[in-house]
Amino acid sequence: MSEQVQLVPNNSLLTKTPEEGRQLAVKMARLIIKVTQPDAAVREKLRPVYADDASMLIAIGQTVAIEFATIAAANNYWK
Amino acid sequence: MSEQVQLVPNNSLLTKTPEEGRQLAVKMARLIIKVTQPDAAVREKLRPVYADDASMLIAIGQTVAIEFATIAAANNYWK
Amino acid sequence: MSEQVQLVPNNSLLTKTPEEGRQLAVKMARLIIKVTQPDAAVREKLRPVYADDASMLIAIGQTVAIEFATIAAANNYWK
Amino acid sequence: MSEQVQLVPNNSLLTKTPEEGRQLAVKMARLIIKVTQPDAAVREKLRPVYADDASMLIAIGQTVAIEFATIAAANNYWK
Amino acid sequence: MSEQVQLVPNNSLLTKTPEEGRQLAVKMARLIIKVTQPDAAVREKLRPVYADDASMLIAIGQTVAIEFATIAAANNYWK
Amino acid sequence: MSEQVQLVPNNSLLTKTPEEGRQLAVKMARLIIKVTQPDAAVREKLRPVYADDASMLIAIGQTVAIEFATIAAANNYWK
Repeated sequence: MSEQVQLVPNNSLLTKTPEEGRQLAVKMARLIIKVTQPDAAVREKLRPVYADDASMLIAIGQTVAIEFATIAAANNYWK
Repeated sequence: MSEQVQLVPNNSLLTKTPEEGRQLAVKMARLIIKVTQPDAAVREKLRPVYADDASMLIAIGQTVAIEFATIAAANNYWK
Repeated sequence: MSEQVQLVPNNSLLTKTPEEGRQLAVKMARLIIKVTQPDAAVREKLRPVYADDASMLIAIGQTVAIEFATIAAANNYWK
Repeated sequence: MSEQVQLVPNNSLLTKTPEEGRQLAVKMARLIIKVTQPDAAVREKLRPVYADDASMLIAIGQTVAIEFATIAAANNYWK
Repeated sequence: MSEQVQLVPNNSLLTKTPEEGRQLAVKMARLIIKVTQPDAAVREKLRPVYADDASMLIAIGQTVAIEFATIAAANNYWK
Repeated sequence: MSEQVQLVPNNSLLTKTPEEGRQLAVKMARLIIKVTQPDAAVREKLRPVYADDASMLIAIGQTVAIEFATIAAANNYWK
């Protein structure tokens, strides 16, 4: 694992809007995959594997949902 | 991934009722699938795959449940 | 997806007792399956698939547990 | 599904001790399986399936962990 | 299931340190497996099955993470 | 299981930044795998198994997300 991958963009969970919070959740989920599989060529090869697989798309959705729960709490739900 | 997909409809987690909150959870879960697989034709092809598969239907239910937990907290459970 | 399916019975997360809250969790989990697979005949065909499969029964249990966590919090744990 | 199955023993999430709370989590997880598969003979047949399968034992552990999180919060963690 | 298995060591979620809290999470996760599969010989046979399987090791990690979330909250995160 | 493996680096959930919190989540997730499979040679053999498997990469992402939720709460979301 390359420790140089930045795992939290801007080093903050705070965003201006729910939309930006959701985008952050997607990015943070992807960065864990990047740090676990640092080889860009392998990741590129895996992309169609999960993007064309209903089961994996659902699993990605679960991951993003969990990340977003944390980000939303950090932002007091943008209330 | 097309960054233009809006991930949080109306850019807010606040809804008038639990019913609307639940609909938002369903939509947000779907939008993550959309942003991960932007090709509408592929998504259309995958729809019967998960809709006819008991295991995937349950997994979709888990995803919606996680999204809804966040939305419900954001709305103070509509109390 | 038929948007007419009511996703939250009585449009409320509040129940008189934990037992009723648990029943609501079971119903809400089922309604997501209903809205994802609106064809009653298909759902009927899938019922024995998951009811006779240990792995899927466990997965259903996880889904209900997540739904119930939200309902229990909404009701301040019926304390 | 038989609606007569009691889903929350004693209709309460409150227990005297963490140990009793943990036992309640195990029972509540099992009762969801019971209500989903009301046929005792089928459940009896499935028991060795999951009890001898490492993957399912782990999944049962996840379910109990989620149930217990709710029960522990309900009891203010027995502090 | 033997009800005699103690599910929560020391009948408490409170620990002196995060390290001890983490060890408690590992133990509590294992005790659920023990209570579900009380036969030590079977559990011994299953150990190499999950210890040599990447997918199951990850699933065990998820279970421990969920248990730890509860224990950490019980201890107010040892702050 | 070797009890000597330290499960929580620095025996604390508190970090200076979200980035460090995220790194801690990754480490804590890995340490559970280490304690479950203490044989470094086996772990080394399993690494390419999950790093080249889209499904397992997603599952690792879920685990880290759950660990991070706890760490973020411990740090009051670095607000």
